[in-house]
Amino acid sequence: MDYRQIAANVKSDSFKMASLPREIRDGALNAIISELDACRDEIFAANRADLEKAAEDNLPAPIQNRLKFDDHKLDDCISGIKGLAAMEDPLFRQLLKRQLDEGLTLVKTTCPIGVIGVIFESRPDALVQISSLCIKSGNCAILKGGSEAAKTNRILFDTIYRAGIAAGLPEGFITLIEDRAGISELLKCHESVDLIIPRGSNEFVQYIMANSKIPVMGHADGVCHIYVDEAADLDKALPIVVDSKTQYVAACNTAETLLVNRNAADRFLPALAEAAKDKITFRGDETSRSIMNCEAATDEDYETEYLDYILTVKIVDTIDEAISHINLYGSHHTDCIITEDADAAAYFMANVDSAGVYQNCSTRFADGFRYGFGAEVGISTGKLHARGPVGLDGLVTYKYKLFGNGHIVADYASGARSFDFKDL
Amino acid sequence: MDYRQIAANVKSDSFKMASLPREIRDGALNAIISELDACRDEIFAANRADLEKAAEDNLPAPIQNRLKFDDHKLDDCISGIKGLAAMEDPLFRQLLKRQLDEGLTLVKTTCPIGVIGVIFESRPDALVQISSLCIKSGNCAILKGGSEAAKTNRILFDTIYRAGIAAGLPEGFITLIEDRAGISELLKCHESVDLIIPRGSNEFVQYIMANSKIPVMGHADGVCHIYVDEAADLDKALPIVVDSKTQYVAACNTAETLLVNRNAADRFLPALAEAAKDKITFRGDETSRSIMNCEAATDEDYETEYLDYILTVKIVDTIDEAISHINLYGSHHTDCIITEDADAAAYFMANVDSAGVYQNCSTRFADGFRYGFGAEVGISTGKLHARGPVGLDGLVTYKYKLFGNGHIVADYASGARSFDFKDL
Repeated sequence: MDYRQIAANVKSDSFKMASLPREIRDGALNAIISELDACRDEIFAANRADLEKAAEDNLPAPIQNRLKFDDHKLDDCISGIKGLAAMEDPLFRQLLKRQLDEGLTLVKTTCPIGVIGVIFESRPDALVQISSLCIKSGNCAILKGGSEAAKTNRILFDTIYRAGIAAGLPEGFITLIEDRAGISELLKCHESVDLIIPRGSNEFVQYIMANSKIPVMGHADGVCHIYVDEAADLDKALPIVVDSKTQYVAACNTAETLLVNRNAADRFLPALAEAAKDKITFRGDETSRSIMNCEAATDEDYETEYLDYILTVKIVDTIDEAISHINLYGSHHTDCIITEDADAAAYFMANVDSAGVYQNCSTRFADGFRYGFGAEVGISTGKLHARGPVGLDGLVTYKYKLFGNGHIVADYASGARSFDFKDL
Repeated sequence: MDYRQIAANVKSDSFKMASLPREIRDGALNAIISELDACRDEIFAANRADLEKAAEDNLPAPIQNRLKFDDHKLDDCISGIKGLAAMEDPLFRQLLKRQLDEGLTLVKTTCPIGVIGVIFESRPDALVQISSLCIKSGNCAILKGGSEAAKTNRILFDTIYRAGIAAGLPEGFITLIEDRAGISELLKCHESVDLIIPRGSNEFVQYIMANSKIPVMGHADGVCHIYVDEAADLDKALPIVVDSKTQYVAACNTAETLLVNRNAADRFLPALAEAAKDKITFRGDETSRSIMNCEAATDEDYETEYLDYILTVKIVDTIDEAISHINLYGSHHTDCIITEDADAAAYFMANVDSAGVYQNCSTRFADGFRYGFGAEVGISTGKLHARGPVGLDGLVTYKYKLFGNGHIVADYASGARSFDFKDL
C-alpha cells in the first residue's frame, strides 16, 4: 500500500469534509447509529472470532476483557453517538468579529484540524468513538487499532464507512490501517497528516513522538497524585484513595502516589492500610514505613506508572512540599487534594501544573465522557493551542478544576449514582 | 552560568506569577511605562553605541534600520503597553462551569502557559513587546535577543526588570540570556521551559525544532500567496499585489507567489509589469512569460521565501488549481484571493489550509497589532491547542478570515489611514 498517496488523498478529502454543513455530518452520525444497530449479529460474530483467537493465544485477561464487544458496549456506543449528534456544532463558530477599519473586517472562526491519525488500543469501542468525534468535528481520521481486535475493527469500520458514504461524507472520511508496518509509514506523512493521537503504553507514545515530524497530542504516562492535607476529612479521603488507585488499575488517570501531610499521617495511614489490605500493595518512604508496614519506595517509584495495585506513599511537611513533589515527579495529568480548607484547595489548584486539579474526588473522573463531552479521543498533557498572530489569547491555556465532596467513580461505574449534566 | 538551575528557578517563580491578581500585573505594566519614559536618555545612548558598532561592522542596512530605537519607537512601545494594560485580563477566565452531579462541579478556567523562552531578532522593541505580553498573561519569559542589539537590550531589560520587581512581580518574571551558547542550553531545559518561540530565519527555526523536546510555537517560513481570480477588480489587485510584495520585504507575511487566473492574465499582467517595473523582479511560468517579460520560475521558486523584491508568477486555469498550489507549496501562513465574487471568496477561504485567508487586501495585515491584539509574540502556523480530556473542542482549531475592499498596509504605515478597532 502506498500510504503517502493514501494520506494525500485523505488530505484532499479533508477540505470537502471541512465544508460540510452540520446537517450532513449529523445525518451521517444518525445513519451510522441505524447501520450499527442493524448489523449487531455480524459485529458480535466477528468479535467472538477475535475473542476465541485471544483465548487461544493466551492473551492477558485484562486485554481479553477490553476486547469484548457485546450488546451492552454497542448500546453505549450508540448512546454516545446520539449525544454527539445532538451537541452544538463545533465548526463555523465565530470567535471574534472585528472591524479593523471601515470595510475591513476580521472574523475568527472555528474549523477542523484536518487529517488526524489515531493509533489506539484493543477496545473496539474506541474505533466507534474516534470516528464519530472526527465526523462531528469535520476531521478525516486514519485509524490503526490493536491487532487482537482486527476482525471486530474491520466490521465496525465497514459498517461506519458504508453509512457515512451513503449519508454524503467524502471517501476519505475514515481510513483503516490493518498492518503494523502501516504505523511507521503513517508517521512519515507529515505533509498530509495534521495530528497524531497515540493511545497506548508510555514507550509506544515516546516512540511515536521521537519518530515523526507530525505534532502529537496525548500523553506518555499518567503519574497522578493524591495529597491528603492536614485539613482533610479522613472519611472522604479513604474511599477516594481506594477508588483512585483501584477502580480501573490500567487507566492513565489512576493514582500512583499518595502524599500525606505529617499532621494527618498518624490518623490516616493505619486506617488506609486496614481498609486496603487486600487491594493495594504500598511502598513507603521512611516516615510512612514507621507508621504502616510496607516495602521501601525509591526515587524511581515516584516517577513510575505502575498500571498495577501498587501505591507509593510519602509523608510531606507542608502543602508546598506536596506541590513541589507533584510538579517534579508527576506527568501534569490529574492531581487531587483532599482538604476541607478552601484556601488550601485554591492554593493547590493554582500551583499544581496539571491539566486536572481536583479537590475531594477521585482522579478517575479525568475522562471526556465524565466531563460531559460525550466522548474523548485522548487526554492531552500538552498546553499549546494557538494559530495565526499570537496575542494574549495564545499565551494562556486552561486547566480543569473539579470540586467534589467525596465523589468516587466506582459509584458511577456500579450504577449507584449517575451523571446529571447541567451547565450553570 | 548554570542554565538548568536558572530555568528551574524561573519555573518555580512562574507559579507565583500565575497567581498574581490583575492589579499587580497591570500595575507593573504602568510602572514599566514610567520607568521607560524616565530612562529615555540612557536607552538612546545605549542604542547609539549599538548603532555605531553595527556601522563599524558593516552590518546590512536593513539590520541597522531595525536596530534603531528612538523617541518614535519608544513612544510606540509605551502606547502598546498602555493598550495591553487596558485590555481584559486573559487569566482566570471561566470557560466552562458545569455541574456533573450534585455537589460535583467542573470549572474550566484560563491560566498561563508558564515559562516561555523567546529568541528574537535585532529589533529592540521586540524585547519590550514580548516582556509586556508575558507580564499581562502571567507568564515568565526567558529572552535572547540579537547580539547586535546587546547594549540596547541590556538597558531595556534592566529598566523593565527594575520596574517590575518594584511593582511586586517575582524575581524570575524575566531573564535575559546574553551569550549565544545560552540558546543551546535553553533548548535542553524541557523540564522547566514550557514553550519556545523562535523568531528568525527558516534555518534557525528548523534548527530549534529539531534540537529540543520543548514545544515550539511559530513558523519556519512564510510563503504567502495572492490569487487574482477571474472575477477580480484589477484596480484593487494592482496595489494589493505591490503592497503585499514590497511594503516590507523581509517580513514573513510578504507575498512570494502570485497566481493569476488565465482569464484575468492578459489584462492584469501587463499592467502589473508596468506598475511594478522599478520595484519587483518577476519570475514566471511558461504562460506568464508569454505575456510579460521575465526569467523562468522553477519548482524551487514556488517554495522559496525570497525576503527580497522577487515575485513568482504562475497562471492557473481554475480556483481549484490555485488552492491546490497554495496548499502544496505554501507555508499555511496567510493567503489572499482577489475577487468580487463572494462565493469564490468563501470557497477559497474554506479550502485554503492557512492561518489567515484573506479577500481583497494585503497579506501584510497578518500581524497582532493590526488585528487589534495590542502586540504579538510571533505568528504560529501550527494548529494545536488542547489540554485535558480532548472532546469536540480539542478537535477544532480556527482560522482568521479578513474581508477587505482593496486595503493595503502602506496606507496605515504612511499614516494616510489609521486603524479604528471596534468589536461588532
